[in-house]
Amino acid sequence: MSEKKKRFIAVIGGGECSAQEAEMAEAVGRELARRGAILVCGGLGGVMKAACKGASSEGGVTIGILPGDNNKEANPYVKIPIVTGMGYARNIAVVKSAQAVIAIGGSYGTLSEISHALQSGIPVIGLNTWSLSRNGQPDNSIIPAQDPTEAVNKALT
Amino acid sequence: MSEKKKRFIAVIGGGECSAQEAEMAEAVGRELARRGAILVCGGLGGVMKAACKGASSEGGVTIGILPGDNNKEANPYVKIPIVTGMGYARNIAVVKSAQAVIAIGGSYGTLSEISHALQSGIPVIGLNTWSLSRNGQPDNSIIPAQDPTEAVNKALT
Amino acid sequence: MSEKKKRFIAVIGGGECSAQEAEMAEAVGRELARRGAILVCGGLGGVMKAACKGASSEGGVTIGILPGDNNKEANPYVKIPIVTGMGYARNIAVVKSAQAVIAIGGSYGTLSEISHALQSGIPVIGLNTWSLSRNGQPDNSIIPAQDPTEAVNKALT
Amino acid sequence: MSEKKKRFIAVIGGGECSAQEAEMAEAVGRELARRGAILVCGGLGGVMKAACKGASSEGGVTIGILPGDNNKEANPYVKIPIVTGMGYARNIAVVKSAQAVIAIGGSYGTLSEISHALQSGIPVIGLNTWSLSRNGQPDNSIIPAQDPTEAVNKALT
Repeated sequence: MSEKKKRFIAVIGGGECSAQEAEMAEAVGRELARRGAILVCGGLGGVMKAACKGASSEGGVTIGILPGDNNKEANPYVKIPIVTGMGYARNIAVVKSAQAVIAIGGSYGTLSEISHALQSGIPVIGLNTWSLSRNGQPDNSIIPAQDPTEAVNKALT
Repeated sequence: MSEKKKRFIAVIGGGECSAQEAEMAEAVGRELARRGAILVCGGLGGVMKAACKGASSEGGVTIGILPGDNNKEANPYVKIPIVTGMGYARNIAVVKSAQAVIAIGGSYGTLSEISHALQSGIPVIGLNTWSLSRNGQPDNSIIPAQDPTEAVNKALT
Repeated sequence: MSEKKKRFIAVIGGGECSAQEAEMAEAVGRELARRGAILVCGGLGGVMKAACKGASSEGGVTIGILPGDNNKEANPYVKIPIVTGMGYARNIAVVKSAQAVIAIGGSYGTLSEISHALQSGIPVIGLNTWSLSRNGQPDNSIIPAQDPTEAVNKALT
Repeated sequence: MSEKKKRFIAVIGGGECSAQEAEMAEAVGRELARRGAILVCGGLGGVMKAACKGASSEGGVTIGILPGDNNKEANPYVKIPIVTGMGYARNIAVVKSAQAVIAIGGSYGTLSEISHALQSGIPVIGLNTWSLSRNGQPDNSIIPAQDPTEAVNKALT
């Protein structure tokens, strides 16, 4: 099967994260790989590393779109490092390269990725992440998930 | 006085906006120019155009950092068009070029700019714009303002 | 073997090209795949498509780093489409993601990629492509190759 | 007169340069300012700094489109610092923001800017800079100038 026909799913979240977030990210990565999806992420530590670790443990393909100038900054579970040299502008490529995004926790960088995804019409599934309201009205664009399996189910719908 | 010593303030918001938002943006632009600040924006329509119009009416300098390949896409009140050809990646340059950001209304593109600003430690003042909570806890990083004058006051603090 | 240990080689050249250039690109792609290298390119037509076709015919992995907003612009032989939405800024990611670059023919876009590679200290092997002189003195940084096999040999040195 | 009606001319060249190149760049900057053009550059040292110094000495407007995350990296003669955080991708914005480009000496970064300009159909005037040949045939797209005044004349044609 062509990998182009495969689903590309981005997993986003903090470069540093709690143990609970890492556990969720690893479970998400495992489940994506089991179901044949290709994992796209920002290639660094925290949630990104845990998700890549999970995917790798199931033999999945992991893509890390890096902000800096060197593929050595990739975490050890990234199989395909993309070196952009463009700093946080790479956040845009992370989400645009995916058919759906799973956000786990995360800080403002993650929020920028959520925003760019929603702006591009790419579904965002959230696990313990940001919620939004606009001018006082809740914006429910981020699809909530209760656990990693539900997140992956919703991403691969 | 060197313009480099001047304050650069970004005004962000929708490329389409309500009449009320346009009115606020125009007032913000006027007030920034009266106080000698240089206006930075994304250079297009809606809030960006209204802010540039206000600043221009007071003789202010207006910078429009454009997503496309042509300075003709700038609104007519942009004095300094910067042509990036980089699409939404230009959002990052809009906020990084400013010492503070004033967000007026806006959709996901504006939210991405808010996120990039907060990630870079640049203060964001909000007028009828997004509010955030993270993992169920309110994130009060966006500084609320009641009206254009208060927003400019807070941006120029 | 981890794909990260594999060599990533960029093949650059015109989005439109002569039949001879396409033939060379396809041979380069085939040879890279036979030798286990991963092909990185800009993902579009001409030299990029021919190189991907060659690599695919030998079961190789092909990465296309796209300028636009949609993976549908990728040629049909791209297995890993990276969607940047950043226009020609993606040229930088194409070369930075590689350990060596093979340039085949090409116009100014290709010349920009050659320049970015040389600026980053990434070797460039040339097949019927640009040659340079600086202030009247030849600059021999582009390593000439006589044919696709020699180009691949030099890229994988 | 609206500054938008003014001509924006990019001056490109090495971040380090010879005394002779600095003298030429300063003369180019002065002449551009005398003739009412706005100077666009990469905002750093060498040719960029000398050109900004020349333009400033005649009261000209100088724009520096910076690669890093901080306007403090701008040379002291930059009046309008644009902070991109995108590394060398900012080279593209430097040339796209101009109606013509004057290249003075320079290394591979300058060559990338020349390439991006020619790719975008923006005229490039050269002073002691790169010359090109493509597949063995000279490419005369870079318009030669003998001295700074001739370079400015050709840029403002």
